[in-house]
Amino acid sequence: MNELARYIVDVPDFPRPGILFRDITPLLRHHFTATLDAVERLLSGEEWRGADALAGIESRGFVLAAGLAARHGKGFVPIRKQGKLPPPVVSAGYALEYGSGVLEMQRGSGSVVIIDDVLATGGTMQASAELCTTAGYQVRALAALIDLRLSGDFIWRGLALRAAIRYD
Amino acid sequence: MNELARYIVDVPDFPRPGILFRDITPLLRHHFTATLDAVERLLSGEEWRGADALAGIESRGFVLAAGLAARHGKGFVPIRKQGKLPPPVVSAGYALEYGSGVLEMQRGSGSVVIIDDVLATGGTMQASAELCTTAGYQVRALAALIDLRLSGDFIWRGLALRAAIRYD
Repeated sequence: MNELARYIVDVPDFPRPGILFRDITPLLRHHFTATLDAVERLLSGEEWRGADALAGIESRGFVLAAGLAARHGKGFVPIRKQGKLPPPVVSAGYALEYGSGVLEMQRGSGSVVIIDDVLATGGTMQASAELCTTAGYQVRALAALIDLRLSGDFIWRGLALRAAIRYD
Repeated sequence: MNELARYIVDVPDFPRPGILFRDITPLLRHHFTATLDAVERLLSGEEWRGADALAGIESRGFVLAAGLAARHGKGFVPIRKQGKLPPPVVSAGYALEYGSGVLEMQRGSGSVVIIDDVLATGGTMQASAELCTTAGYQVRALAALIDLRLSGDFIWRGLALRAAIRYD
């Protein structure tokens, strides 16, 4: 277990009864650089150089993707919840640990690394990967700060999720 | 007018009739580094060094605040919509260009620069500044990528909003 995990606060029954929420807010406040370092190490220098943009999943994924895009001089692409981006957008439905929804993004081109904070069941990441493809992007890698491993290994079209912290 | 404004797409009647939405998505995709440069120039090097963290307003403010926090090795603090952060939180009501809501953040200490993407009426920025103060932070500066100037100059407790792009 990565030592950053010590700064993650477990909050039982949030946002709903039965859900154990992993709160990364203290980590981002006090160890943001080390957090970005940990996600950065998930890809090689060549892989970072090969990406045109980092796609962040709303909204904690925005924080990690934007931080790494800033470091590497890459573009930032938002994957947003329905109704937030102006049209035209492409959309994909998803199920997650608690509830379901629709993700949207604008069309584009080039290669992206998709980044989120926490992978739970993988529903959001899978929808995001499919959405990026539909939108015209080539998905080069999938990364998360935390993999809760609720559904075992997450692999999408041969791309295994890379995570800095895994709860086994 | 900053030349970055050329990459902002005007979307009439989004998200509601009568609202002219300034879409920065293409700017973030194709000119993220230059966008961060523009916001970075709003504060002096000494001012950036003096801040302990950058507070981003959900959710496009997250992108700019996280990018600049990454550059300067600072912490990231999220100012979120109600119900997104686990308790305990402090909260503040606000009115904005279309609708109203409640912002929340966790308690903390140190000095912050508050960053959002667009200042419209200033209601969200004002609530954020008051919220940071209530939460225990010292607010050192207020910055936005775009100031729509819907309500003239925005000043909070002697701090004038700094913006890279102004629509006069």
